[in-house]
Order: sequence, then C-alpha cells, then structure tokens
Amino acid sequence: MSSILIQGGTVVNADRAFKADVLTQDGKIVAVGTDLQAPAGTTVVDAGGQYVMPGGIDPHTHMQLPFMGTVTMDDFYTGTAAGLAGGTTSIIDFVIPNPQQPLLEAYQTWRGWAEKAAGDYSFHMAITWWDESVKRDMGTLVNEEGINSFKHFMAYKNAIMCDDETLVNSFKRCLELGAMPTVHAENGELVYLLQKQVAEMGITGPEGHPLSRPPMVEGEAANRAIAIADVLNVPIYVVHVSCIEAAEAICRARARGQRVYGEVLAGHLMIDDSIYRHPDFATAAAHVMSPPFRPKGHQEYLWRGLQSGNLHTTATDHCTFCAAQKAAGKDDFAKIPNGCGGVEERMAVVWDEGVNTGRLTPSEFVAVTSANTAKLFNLYPQKGSVSVGADADLVVWDPAGSKTLSAKTQFSKGDYNVFEGRTVKGIPSHTLSQGKLVFVQGDLRAERGAGRYLKRPAFGSNFAAAKLRSEVLTPTAVKR
Amino acid sequence: MSSILIQGGTVVNADRAFKADVLTQDGKIVAVGTDLQAPAGTTVVDAGGQYVMPGGIDPHTHMQLPFMGTVTMDDFYTGTAAGLAGGTTSIIDFVIPNPQQPLLEAYQTWRGWAEKAAGDYSFHMAITWWDESVKRDMGTLVNEEGINSFKHFMAYKNAIMCDDETLVNSFKRCLELGAMPTVHAENGELVYLLQKQVAEMGITGPEGHPLSRPPMVEGEAANRAIAIADVLNVPIYVVHVSCIEAAEAICRARARGQRVYGEVLAGHLMIDDSIYRHPDFATAAAHVMSPPFRPKGHQEYLWRGLQSGNLHTTATDHCTFCAAQKAAGKDDFAKIPNGCGGVEERMAVVWDEGVNTGRLTPSEFVAVTSANTAKLFNLYPQKGSVSVGADADLVVWDPAGSKTLSAKTQFSKGDYNVFEGRTVKGIPSHTLSQGKLVFVQGDLRAERGAGRYLKRPAFGSNFAAAKLRSEVLTPTAVKR
Amino acid sequence: MSSILIQGGTVVNADRAFKADVLTQDGKIVAVGTDLQAPAGTTVVDAGGQYVMPGGIDPHTHMQLPFMGTVTMDDFYTGTAAGLAGGTTSIIDFVIPNPQQPLLEAYQTWRGWAEKAAGDYSFHMAITWWDESVKRDMGTLVNEEGINSFKHFMAYKNAIMCDDETLVNSFKRCLELGAMPTVHAENGELVYLLQKQVAEMGITGPEGHPLSRPPMVEGEAANRAIAIADVLNVPIYVVHVSCIEAAEAICRARARGQRVYGEVLAGHLMIDDSIYRHPDFATAAAHVMSPPFRPKGHQEYLWRGLQSGNLHTTATDHCTFCAAQKAAGKDDFAKIPNGCGGVEERMAVVWDEGVNTGRLTPSEFVAVTSANTAKLFNLYPQKGSVSVGADADLVVWDPAGSKTLSAKTQFSKGDYNVFEGRTVKGIPSHTLSQGKLVFVQGDLRAERGAGRYLKRPAFGSNFAAAKLRSEVLTPTAVKR
Amino acid sequence: MSSILIQGGTVVNADRAFKADVLTQDGKIVAVGTDLQAPAGTTVVDAGGQYVMPGGIDPHTHMQLPFMGTVTMDDFYTGTAAGLAGGTTSIIDFVIPNPQQPLLEAYQTWRGWAEKAAGDYSFHMAITWWDESVKRDMGTLVNEEGINSFKHFMAYKNAIMCDDETLVNSFKRCLELGAMPTVHAENGELVYLLQKQVAEMGITGPEGHPLSRPPMVEGEAANRAIAIADVLNVPIYVVHVSCIEAAEAICRARARGQRVYGEVLAGHLMIDDSIYRHPDFATAAAHVMSPPFRPKGHQEYLWRGLQSGNLHTTATDHCTFCAAQKAAGKDDFAKIPNGCGGVEERMAVVWDEGVNTGRLTPSEFVAVTSANTAKLFNLYPQKGSVSVGADADLVVWDPAGSKTLSAKTQFSKGDYNVFEGRTVKGIPSHTLSQGKLVFVQGDLRAERGAGRYLKRPAFGSNFAAAKLRSEVLTPTAVKR
Repeated sequence: MSSILIQGGTVVNADRAFKADVLTQDGKIVAVGTDLQAPAGTTVVDAGGQYVMPGGIDPHTHMQLPFMGTVTMDDFYTGTAAGLAGGTTSIIDFVIPNPQQPLLEAYQTWRGWAEKAAGDYSFHMAITWWDESVKRDMGTLVNEEGINSFKHFMAYKNAIMCDDETLVNSFKRCLELGAMPTVHAENGELVYLLQKQVAEMGITGPEGHPLSRPPMVEGEAANRAIAIADVLNVPIYVVHVSCIEAAEAICRARARGQRVYGEVLAGHLMIDDSIYRHPDFATAAAHVMSPPFRPKGHQEYLWRGLQSGNLHTTATDHCTFCAAQKAAGKDDFAKIPNGCGGVEERMAVVWDEGVNTGRLTPSEFVAVTSANTAKLFNLYPQKGSVSVGADADLVVWDPAGSKTLSAKTQFSKGDYNVFEGRTVKGIPSHTLSQGKLVFVQGDLRAERGAGRYLKRPAFGSNFAAAKLRSEVLTPTAVKR
Repeated sequence: MSSILIQGGTVVNADRAFKADVLTQDGKIVAVGTDLQAPAGTTVVDAGGQYVMPGGIDPHTHMQLPFMGTVTMDDFYTGTAAGLAGGTTSIIDFVIPNPQQPLLEAYQTWRGWAEKAAGDYSFHMAITWWDESVKRDMGTLVNEEGINSFKHFMAYKNAIMCDDETLVNSFKRCLELGAMPTVHAENGELVYLLQKQVAEMGITGPEGHPLSRPPMVEGEAANRAIAIADVLNVPIYVVHVSCIEAAEAICRARARGQRVYGEVLAGHLMIDDSIYRHPDFATAAAHVMSPPFRPKGHQEYLWRGLQSGNLHTTATDHCTFCAAQKAAGKDDFAKIPNGCGGVEERMAVVWDEGVNTGRLTPSEFVAVTSANTAKLFNLYPQKGSVSVGADADLVVWDPAGSKTLSAKTQFSKGDYNVFEGRTVKGIPSHTLSQGKLVFVQGDLRAERGAGRYLKRPAFGSNFAAAKLRSEVLTPTAVKR
Repeated sequence: MSSILIQGGTVVNADRAFKADVLTQDGKIVAVGTDLQAPAGTTVVDAGGQYVMPGGIDPHTHMQLPFMGTVTMDDFYTGTAAGLAGGTTSIIDFVIPNPQQPLLEAYQTWRGWAEKAAGDYSFHMAITWWDESVKRDMGTLVNEEGINSFKHFMAYKNAIMCDDETLVNSFKRCLELGAMPTVHAENGELVYLLQKQVAEMGITGPEGHPLSRPPMVEGEAANRAIAIADVLNVPIYVVHVSCIEAAEAICRARARGQRVYGEVLAGHLMIDDSIYRHPDFATAAAHVMSPPFRPKGHQEYLWRGLQSGNLHTTATDHCTFCAAQKAAGKDDFAKIPNGCGGVEERMAVVWDEGVNTGRLTPSEFVAVTSANTAKLFNLYPQKGSVSVGADADLVVWDPAGSKTLSAKTQFSKGDYNVFEGRTVKGIPSHTLSQGKLVFVQGDLRAERGAGRYLKRPAFGSNFAAAKLRSEVLTPTAVKR
Repeated sequence: MSSILIQGGTVVNADRAFKADVLTQDGKIVAVGTDLQAPAGTTVVDAGGQYVMPGGIDPHTHMQLPFMGTVTMDDFYTGTAAGLAGGTTSIIDFVIPNPQQPLLEAYQTWRGWAEKAAGDYSFHMAITWWDESVKRDMGTLVNEEGINSFKHFMAYKNAIMCDDETLVNSFKRCLELGAMPTVHAENGELVYLLQKQVAEMGITGPEGHPLSRPPMVEGEAANRAIAIADVLNVPIYVVHVSCIEAAEAICRARARGQRVYGEVLAGHLMIDDSIYRHPDFATAAAHVMSPPFRPKGHQEYLWRGLQSGNLHTTATDHCTFCAAQKAAGKDDFAKIPNGCGGVEERMAVVWDEGVNTGRLTPSEFVAVTSANTAKLFNLYPQKGSVSVGADADLVVWDPAGSKTLSAKTQFSKGDYNVFEGRTVKGIPSHTLSQGKLVFVQGDLRAERGAGRYLKRPAFGSNFAAAKLRSEVLTPTAVKR
C-alpha cells in the first residue's frame, strides 16, 4: 500500500490537541510527530490550518434495512460511501432477526449484505425474542463472531418489541458474556394505545406521530431499562436519547455511580417537532422517525448532556426512505416508514453547532464523534485515536470550509435531507480509510467492497474499556 | 342515639387547631364552639389538656385476606376493633379477585366478610386481569357500588400481577370513570429473577427477602406507573412507598405539576432492614412484607416526604399472620406469607415519631392520618374533619399519655407486634365511632357488625376533591 | 351594621367546595349553611351559579412607596380600593426603613400613610441594616405591634441590600421571636457588576434590565437564603419567585423536609421577557421590575409550583409608576423606577390561566390567593376562610363573567396595565369588606379610611400555623 | 542522565491500559512499546504483573504553611519526599498572602520555601483581598510566572475570607486572563455564628468542630460560587468537596452544561465524623480539618461522583500538625489548627477502596489521581500521561503488594496518620521522578532540592485543556 503524510495540521484526540504531522503506511498510522520525513513515494497532504482527527464512527445506522414493508434507500455501499464523504469511516449497523428467527441466520444475512460496504463496519445484534437458543446464540456471537453489544426495542408492539421478561433475561445474559446491552427506549404499550387514540381524534397526518410518542413515553422506558441494568449490575447504553426526560434518567443514574451511556442523534440535536405540522405532507413525513423530533428546549438539553459527559456519543440512525416509500402512510401516520438520513452530515452539523458555538472543544468533538464510541464498543484505539498503531482512518478537517447541505448535492441516496438548506462552517477536506484517500476536496473515491467487518471482543478481558463492575459485596446467608 | 359533649379540648383539623367543645348527636357532629351547652342526657367527656381530632382512617388494610395459601389472623371484626382501640375509626380494605374471577362476584364476597366490622369501612378494587367484562364491571362498581379507586399489583408474577397492557387499559378506564388508580409498585419480573438468584446463592432465610426486592425494584415500578398516568393524564396514588427511589419518583412528578399521591406505612417509617438478619427465624419472618423494610436512611426520607407534602397519607397494610403461618416459608423465604400488623398502633407511632420530634404539627398529623385520605378517596368532610355535619368519628388524644406497645397487650389478633417494646407518648384516651364511645381509657367497647359500608362517589362531580385535570390543549389535525 | 345574605352560591374554601348560603352580621360571618334565613333588614345577594370565596389577600404590595427618587402612583387609598374592585380585601405592605433609620420610626411613618386605606392591611418590616437597636426593635414590633415577618433585600447594593452577616443575624433573631423571615432573592453583587458590563456593551435601554439580572442571580440568592434558614432551623418565605432556578431551590429544600414557602407574582405567571425588546420605550420600561419577567418556559414552571404545593401564595408586588416617572431611566435602564401594578387584576388572571385551564381547582385557587397567605402570616381563619367567626371579607365570583383588562378602565392609578388587552373569564361580581358591599357589578364603593390595621401575632403560640420546628436532637459535649 | 527501562508491565493511561515496556532517558519518556531494547547502561525494572502509571499529582497540599499561629510539620522537602514514597511525583501547593500583602511578595516567599522540594511542584495563588494592585498582579502571575489558577476562601471570617464582591471581581479577572478560579466552599458567616452558638452550648471539644460546619454550610457556598461562575461564564474548580450537598451542587451545574470541576480528598472518601467524638482528645483533634469529615453516607456519594465524572480529581489538603500543635485548641475547638496529612497514602487508599472494590477501573484511577489534574491545570501531557515526550514521572504499581498504614512507618513528618491501621492492597513498588528511581521497594531515595517549579500556561492558547466557553450569543441593544 502507499504511504501518506499529513503535514502541518493540528492533531486532535479526545484527550488533547497538538501540532503534529501524521504518517500512514499500509493502512496504519506509523508516526505522529513534528517534522516527519516522508519516505519515497509518499503522498503528502497539506493540513495547514486544519485539524487531523480520527475518522468518525457512527454507532447507529440501518443500511439496506427491510422495515415496515419496504427497504431503506441506502445500502451498505452507498451508505458507507456517503459516510466517507462526511468524514465518517466506520459504522455499527444492526442485525435484526424476526421473532423466532435464529440469530445466527440473521447474522449471516446481514454479513452478506454488508460485503459491498466501502468503509469498515460492525454489528449490534437485536434481541427480538427469547428462548434457550437465543441465549446460546448470544454466546456464539460474542465468543466467535465479535459482536459485543445487543439491542432491545422497547417499542414496536406486535413486531420486534421486547417485554420486561426478555429484557431481564437478556441483560443478565449480557452480564455473563461481557457484552453491552443497548435499548431503544419507548414504552410500546403506550405508543400502541396513543396511536389508536390519536387516530380516533381524526388525526391521521404526520402531526399525529409525535402526539403518539410524547417525551414521557421515552423517559419511562429509559428509566426502566436503566433500573433493570442497575439491579442486575450490568452497564447499559441508551440509543438515540431525544428528550429531557430520557436524558435526566441517565443523569440520575450516573450521579449514583451507575455505568450508563447515552447516544444522541445529529437530528435530535438540531431539529424540533414543529416540522410535523408542515403543510407539505412529504416534508412532514420525511421527518417521521422514532423517537420523533421534540419541542424546542429539548435540543439544548441534549447539547448539555454532551458537554457534561452524561451523553457520550453522536450517531444518526441513518435509515432513509424516499417520498414514494413515505407515502405508504399518506392516510395513517402509523404506516409511514420510520427513518431519516444523516450519516453524511453528522460530523459537520455537530462541529458547526457544537464547536463553532463554544459548546464543545475540538477534543470533545472527537470524543463524541469517534473516541467514546470506540471505547464503549471495544474498537479503541484501533479506531477513535490518532496514534501510532491505530488504523489510518482519518479526517482532515477544514474549520474555515463551508457548505450548504442539500438533497441535491448529497452522496447519500434518497430525495430528502433533514438538514436541507443549512450552511455549515467546518467540513472535511480529506478522508482516509485504511490509509487511502477516499474523499478529497469534494471528490468521493469510495470503493465498493473495500470495507472490512470489525470484530469487537467482549469486555472484561480489556479493563481499559468500560469494565463491568464487580460486586462490591456478596450477600450471605444468616446462620440460624 | 345519645349525645356526647367533648369539653375543654383543642380541636385539631388539617387546616388549624383551636380551643373548642364538640357536641355530637345521632352519630353526627352538631356543634363545634366554645362553651357549648350539653342537652339533657348528654355524656360529657373531659378533654382538658387533650386534642380532639378526626378518627384515623387507614387506607390500606387486608382483613380476613386469603393469601399465599392461608388467611390473615384479623378478620373484619377483630381488625376494625383493634383500629378503634388505636384511634382509627375507618379503614379502606381491598377486594382482590382471582384472575378471571368476575369483579362483582369478588366484591360481593368481600362485602359479606365485612359485615361483622366494628368500624366503618370501604373498599378499593384490585384489577388482576383484563377483558371487556372487567372494563364494564369497573363502571358498575363506580356508578352503583361506590368504589372510586382501583388497585394494580405490579409484582406477584404468575399470580395477581398486572402487565403494562393491563395497566394502560385500566388507567384509561379510571380516567373515563373519574376513579383513582393506585399501584403496588414493584417490578415483578425483577423480583421473580432475583428470588431465583438469591436461592441459587444458597440464601433461603428471611434475609433473602429484601435481597430479592431491592429499592430500585420499587423505584422503577413507581416511576413507570407515574409516567403512564402522566401520559394518560390521570391522577395516581402509590401505595406503601417504602424507599427513597420511589419517593423521589413522586417528588419529580409532583414538581412537574402532576397529580401524584403517596402513601407511607407506619412500619416503613420506623423499622429498618437489619431485622431480617435477626438470628431468630420467627422474628425475622414476622417482618416479611412487600415492599420490605429498607436500609437506614430511607426512613428519614419518608418522613421528609410527609413534611413536604410529597407524601400524603399514612397506612399500615395491616395483614397479620401468626408464627405458625409464617413457618410455611421456613426453608424458602419466598413462601413466607407476606404481611405485618399495625392498624392499632399507627396513630400512636406516627404521633410519637412525628409530632413529638417536631417533624409534624398536630394539624399535619391530622392531615396524614385522616384528612388527606378522606379527600383523596372522596370521604371528606364526612370523614377527616371535626366540623358540623361530619360523622362523629373522633379521637380524644392525650399527648401526655404513654404506653409500651406489645403483642401481649394488643387487641389485634396475632402473636407478633412489629413495634414490640416501643414506648410511645401520645395515645387515645377516647375513641368515638358514629357518635358512640367505643374506646375509653383502655376499655375497648367495639360492637361486632356496627360498622357501615362507605360508598365513595366518583371524582369530577365534586371539584373540592382531587379533580381530574382537564386537557389544557386539545391536539388538532393539520389541514393539508 | 347591616347584615348580608349571600344566597345560592357554592362556597369555596381551601379544603373543599360545597353549596351553601353565607350570612354576615356586624362585619363577621355568622352562618354558613343551606337554606339560611335572612333576618329583617338583610341585604340579599344572589350568588346562583357563582362561587363565594374568601376575599383575596395580596401579601406583597408597595403603596405610596418612596423609591428610586420618586413615589409610586397608588397610595394606600387608591391601591386598596383597586384591590377591592378585583376581589382582594387585604394587603400586606412593607415598611422599609432607610439604613440607620430606627425601625419604629419608619413603622410609624407607614402606619400614618396607611390610615387612608379602604381595605384591611398589615405590614412586613424590612431589615436594611443591623445593630443592637435593630435587634431590640424587632422584638418590640413582634410583641407589641403585630408584625411577625421581616423582609431582607439581597439586592440593591449601596442602598437597602443585606449582606450575609445581617441575614444570618436577623434570621437568628426571627427564630427567637417566632417571626417569619422573608427574602427578595437576587445576588446584589452580581447585579451591580452586570449592570456595569451591560452598560459597557452600549446597552442602555430596558432590554438591558433582564440582561443584568439573569435567572441564576435569583436562583443563587434563593438557594443561599434557604440554606442559611436550614442551618439556623428557621422557616423562610421567598417573595416573588420568578424563575425555574429559584423555584428549584425551593423544591429541593422542601423535598428534604425544610419549611420553605414561595410566593409568585401574577405578572411572572403570565408575561415573558420578550416585552423588554419592545420598540416602544414606554412599553418596555413599564415592565421594568425586579426580578424581571423571564424567558418563555419559566412561566409554566411557576404554575407547576403552585400545582405541586412547592409554591404557596400569589401576590403582585404592586408598585406603580407612570410613564413620566419611568422616563427617568430613558438613557440608563438602571435608573428606571422598578415596579408594575396588578393588585386589581391578580384574582382574575390567576383564575383565568389557573382554573379555566384545569391547572388549579377552585379550592386550590382559594389556597393560593388567600388561605395560604393567611396561614403563613398568621391571619387565619380570620382571613382566608369562609367560616363562622371569620371576617366578612368575601368575593362572589362569577365564573361566566368576562372582562378585557386595560389601563383605560382600571381603578388603579397609573397609565399602564401589564395585562393590557387580555380578556379574562371569571371576575368578581361582588366584593364584601368587613361585611359591607364595596364592589357590586362593576360599581366600586370603596371608602377612604375604612381599612383597619391587622396585627399578626408571633408563631409558636399558635401551632395550627406554620410552626417553628423544634430541634429533634440537641448536640451534647463529649466527656473527656 | 541515566536511562531506565520498565519491562513487562501493563501501562495504564486515562484512556486505556495495554501491555508495553517504557523507556526513559534524560528525564523524559522516549519509548512506549512492546519488546523495547535497552541501550547500554540502562537500568531495567521488572514490572511483570504490575501496572506502570503516571506518577500521582496532588493538586492540594500545604507544605510549610504558617497557619493559625504555627507552621505545619512537613516542609517542601519532607512533604514531597513522602509523596514520592507513595507514588505522587508532583504537587500543587498554595501561596496565601496575608490580606493587604502584595501577591508577588508572597509568591517569592513561597518560591523560596519550595526550593528544597524533592519532587516537582507548582502553585495556586490565593486571593485574600482586593484592589487594583491585586488585579494587576494576577496578570503578572499568569503571564510571567506560570500560575493559572486562583484560590478563594469563602470561610475564615476576619482572616483570609473573600466576600462576594471580591469573588465576583476575581472570577471576572480570571476569565480575562484564562485562569481557573477555585474555591474553598464554606459560608464563613455561618461558621462564625455557629462556632459561637456551639461554644454557648458548652461544647468546647473537637466534637464541636463538625457542629459548627454542617454540610449545608459547604453546600451553600459551593452553589454560590458555581452560580457566580455560571453568570460570569468562567469555569470553576471546587476544592475538597466533602459532602452530598456540595457534590449535588456540582452535579446540577454540570447537568446544565457548565464547566465545573470537583476535587475530593482521600480522607473524605474514607473517614466519617464519628471520629470527632473519640474519647481521646488527641485522636479527635488530629482529625480537625475544614471541611470536616462527614456523617456516614457522604463518603459513598463522593465515590459516586468520581465514578460518574461529576468529580474529577483526588487530593489530600496535606497540612500536618503534631499533637502539641493541636493542643492549642484543648479548651476551644475553634483554636485547633486545621489540617491532616495524606500525601503519602492517597494513591494507595484510593486504589484499595476504588479499584479493588470495582468502583474504578485502573484507567479511571489514573484519571482521578493524575491525568485530570494535569489537564485541568494545564500540565498535560507533560504530567499525567505515559507517552513519548512526557516527563518520566512514573509509578510502578504492585496490585498484589500490601501494607498497613501507620504513623510509625510513614515518611511524612507528624505523629499521626488518619489512615492508621488500615491495610491496603496495591502499593507502589517503584517511583520515578524526572527519570530517576526515587523510591524502590520501600527504599526512599528522595533528593533535597531536586524538585523543579512547574510553570503552567494560561488556558485559551491550548484548546485541548479546559477551554473557556465563548459566548454563544452576544446581547445587542434594541434600536428605538
């Protein structure tokens, strides 16, 4: 492989930023220092006035997902390529078995779909049902297939929803395996009832979507999952925290010392729920995702979570449907396929609203866009770090560069962009994946199938990652 | 009926205390004022230096309850008589249908059992299963039988536990009917798992009981029920709040303006969980109830709840089993019949630890021992108030009187007293029920069958009670 | 005196509402009951379809106040008369000595000014400086003059601001005397600095006022005063709580069982800070008061405080200046006389936004407009209660009546109304003061000098009021 | 200088732990990697089965401090040497000018005293008074002398206490300079009053000390300082957070996104206030420090703060007095010189109670014992990091090693050890300072005067450190 020297930039890691050159060779970082010499044949990238950061990791995407009777627009190739264009070099997607489907069967299906990916990828496994075979297969996945995180949908009744019995059993199994349980936190029984109530009120448009999933529905479920994790003494990661109620549940748990982690989506940080009352159905429907966008006020609270360290990662839940697909719910908001894009825009919008406003330092930006995800899902420091030995997945970030986001100019498939018209300052000038320049000044050079599957080992063997807490006290029987 | 004049005392109501005489006639209070004249034939009670307060109401008792394969020691006669001896003149007990049993059938059974009661009584109805007939019968009970509160057990899996689907449906029905939903808040799935885990650790004695029901198990369930009530916009009453976690869930909800009410048991205010490690099995087992007694620190937090108005009522969950019954769980704590007494001691221990310490004023004592319960369950001012027109259920309280509580001297059945050996200052000198002296200076004159069934009308017709909040904003559809 | 019979209404007290007639004689209520007979010569008021409530008490007014170089428009006559027109029959105003001025001298001055009042009145005394004479005079005021509450301004540096030393000494003295300390909570040092900073930014208009007094300035001071009260074990009352930060400080303290009480102004419940950016100086300046109106979101939080019982009373801080007076700060917002009106509108706006929206029941309305104030400042049940023996200060409230508030139609002096243009549903049809009809269907019959000074005894002698907590534990020395 | 190779250990940094050798040369780390080769003459340290961590940094010590009429036992030589024995290689001490003393004069005095130090050191400067010269000298200290943090005592009335006016002015100055304000948070007015009250109760022994400084006294001051920092938009660091009340103030502020940092002392993590009632005066007096040790329950809450990231650093407030010195307060607890030791024991007790119990991972241990302090006070990565280019201040940590702490065996001066008798598992086997072995298996080789003064640059120039938040919105004037 060729060698690349990134010269004159400011390297930003989660712990600090410093002036240094970065040299890559054969897909790895081989030197970080001042005045590095380029071996013969090295491509030199001038990073003067720019930041050199770990490539972004999006811990929550759904490429090529069959969902609500259709399949998302972006497949693993187009989706990961769009990520590279935005400075994101790895994704963690989800294997979602149908209830009763063997986990390993679903896993193989997703592995097959993902072979076309242009960037590196990994998988969380969803637990959508429970029996002894599920319990056994979780072990196989952790020990042999490099999956160390399991997702639980607390919503979607009569489909993939976990009840408390499954939650409790699966969390306990995660603890045994050294794997991280994660939850989509919404109370599915309430959503089910509210969808009917809202329909009975004669509300069938997208404005019914947030009415059927108010913040407390999420806050309750988040609190419940966290409490179960606390009782069972297992860490927990809450995906797409969208509202004050859920973020507060996390804050409370962390304040009592519990190992709870929260993820926030770029969209939830920027967009409020007034969009659902947009007079154009297609516009409103394009924003239907769960949890929904929230009333003004919630966005700022999520930023505060990132600032304070009560929320840890940013993601997108990238899951795109075109207008024709969204139209399936023309007469019933509950039938609008749930999902929005963002894998391409996340890094830029988080920088623009996070760093340019002073909310986050560049180091904190790296923490919430790559390093924390890498640590929490055991990819660190292979990913999420600009250091010798790490993968050469890098983004050269131009803080002065500017761009107006639009569906017209995006690489991602789909005919809509939830950040449409937003001008951001701070964009990638170059993206490197596995030591190759895959995006250069607007020129996307993504290669179909170049991405690799990332195995993620169980926790416990690696105490530098989020270690499972050992029991401080072991209860004893009273002698009588 | 005869007339009674209580002379020279200080009348204490929830809003204030003042020097006044109280005259009763035909079971009602007919005058409250200074220097009242006694009609001929009036019995005069000298209340000099004493307080004259509404008789206590215990909103949580289980007399004659068939539970865990046996029946509680106190029936409706002995239990209500013990209450009269302690200054408690009314109870609200529970009808608990078996799953699939028609509600009205169970209701009739309990009405029959209760006919022997010596003091007035009412019933909450437990919702232990769900179908259209349950929904219909709830309407009948509210509209025709005077039951305006429904209880939901969130624990006791495979027995009377409600899942979320039933909770959601029943709460919604309560809202329609103007009835108060109440919950026993413990996450039954966690309890089920923990009971197995604790047993696997080789812990079979009563010390396993609190290990299988840690505070977070209650905190989670309380938070969940409150969140569901918030989303559905129905008030909610949480029975036997025993721990910081549950009390905090109530505080949080109240701080956001939600109509949430909390009950605390006399036992939970005084006793900590160290008792479960008592070397004597019978002693430890005598304290097995759910939720269990809690670690030191929780008791003080519950007092703070009463002081701040975040908790509202005191009760007992009076549900007595003798040592022989408790012995059913000799080799398995999960089989120890759950329940403790207290209906006779509640008023005195709350006074002693509440008023004598300065935590509560006498008026606040009346609020948390009778007036708040009467308001929340729509018995006010018939009960819970010393005022003209109210029932002549009164207690003359001697703040200088003293007594040592003991199973040996109690009127309640059963061979154990959880307050054994505690000396209290502040005891009833006289209790009046329906205008009759039923307890005089230690002499109990309870009459079998003298108690009446109290019908409690639905809320909504009576805005002075806890009114159901109307919707501030009604959602509307967007015209497209 | 003549006698009045109010027939056919629904009597509303803080504890309940019920159908009843009310008969007054010689300035007192002499009967409350159904089908009351009117003695000869009795004036009969038809209250059919209306509520009969205790007359409002405004615990925070400044009539005829010399402040910032001028004097408020409303004197004790016009101000109390305006109150009567709005259903408010009593006020508690403030005696504010200059630093170094003897307290009793100031007290006499205010007593003189107040003689012209048309409704009953009482006084809080401000502690604006400290020495032994102040300490002594506090005793005289409590024991001889019927003042049982002392106000402390934590803002207004170089004028009437208390430093922590004075706060601590005065709170301790209040505890000794059985008097209630109250605070105006704003950190005066921060305000002083911020006023300079804002001016340095070139901001001289009224929009600078809220910038110089952000919510945290109030939150800090509230928390500090409450903490001091907690340490010294004295109750505390926080006047004009305007923001989330201060209300949360109260919530936290109450949750730990502390006796803390909060007052909220009608204006702070309705109006947000966007008004300060109104292009018309006079409009913006008319709203300059301290604490200022707050960003949207704070108003709802204050309502929640009233609903949850974490805030207790509603007031107005009635302190009116006309446009010519406000113009003193034309070029410097810090020189705009601070103050707004409201004594006439409070009852109607709190009903309209509180009861009509379902936030408050009518009983809760009575609690927050009169009963709680009467209890906290020891006027209950003489005031704040429709009961036999209470003062015949009553308002007959027409829930169907409607009115558009305006400076053009108000009785209060001044050329501005902060509720201008707001149409309220729910207005007084009749007001009775001391058993006389002083307002009838829009006809104000206030009588100059008819108001009486209300002496308020110290706490401690009256345990039905907010009793001072006794020490639970007395620290002891270790024997060594 | 000689070269040292630490072989076969597990390197622990704040972000992760990994197997690697560490090579040092000329006082710096020159290589971190597997299978490193030792140049000729290199000393090899076998770290098999051990951890190699950054040397500890104690951000809060008082060596050679003149205080309360005497001088602490440990001077800069003995104190820093004791630190080296415990694995702590740097300290940050305090220059404390007398009121009215020029800052630079005091600074020179302390610099002189510190020349004998055996390990590296730096200084915080205390602001004990205010005028223009203080403001000017703060600039000189930041820009020329490498002091980027200023300490404010909110207690010690009539001595070194800052009032709010000084706090506000100094915090503002810190913001201008890019320096970190820090506070000793106790309300000095309350302490002053309570000391008198406690004495009046006849309590003169050490048990009076915590009675005069209850937790709320600290909680109030912490909240106040944090609120002032929030309003002025400057970060803040709270030293020796000892209680729930202060830790909660920090949690609340962090949850709203504020840059607040908390320090906790090793002693406050382990010791409760029952010690003050020890019958032996010397024992009780030996524990007199401010804030005092707290009731049981507070310790666990502090641990939770470290776990959750709401508290950031561990320190000791090392400030030792011998029994003869402590005896100055034999008859008046307020005269007992305040201070305890710990610089030698901190690392071991935090490991033992933190890592061995599962509360902290080894990486988190490094974060709270060195890396966070280095970042917050701008010493990172020179200190607090095992990485190429960093100072060779290292500790080789033997997790299996064990030791019983005692005054008899300590290197620190003084006749008392607050951890007396505690057996810890996990102790340093080797300490390196500036690349030299200064402690080897119990053999202390500290060299008088070997320590260097550490200049710490201002923030702002270095965005990897705790960056000062820029204003998101700049207020503007309204055009009228």
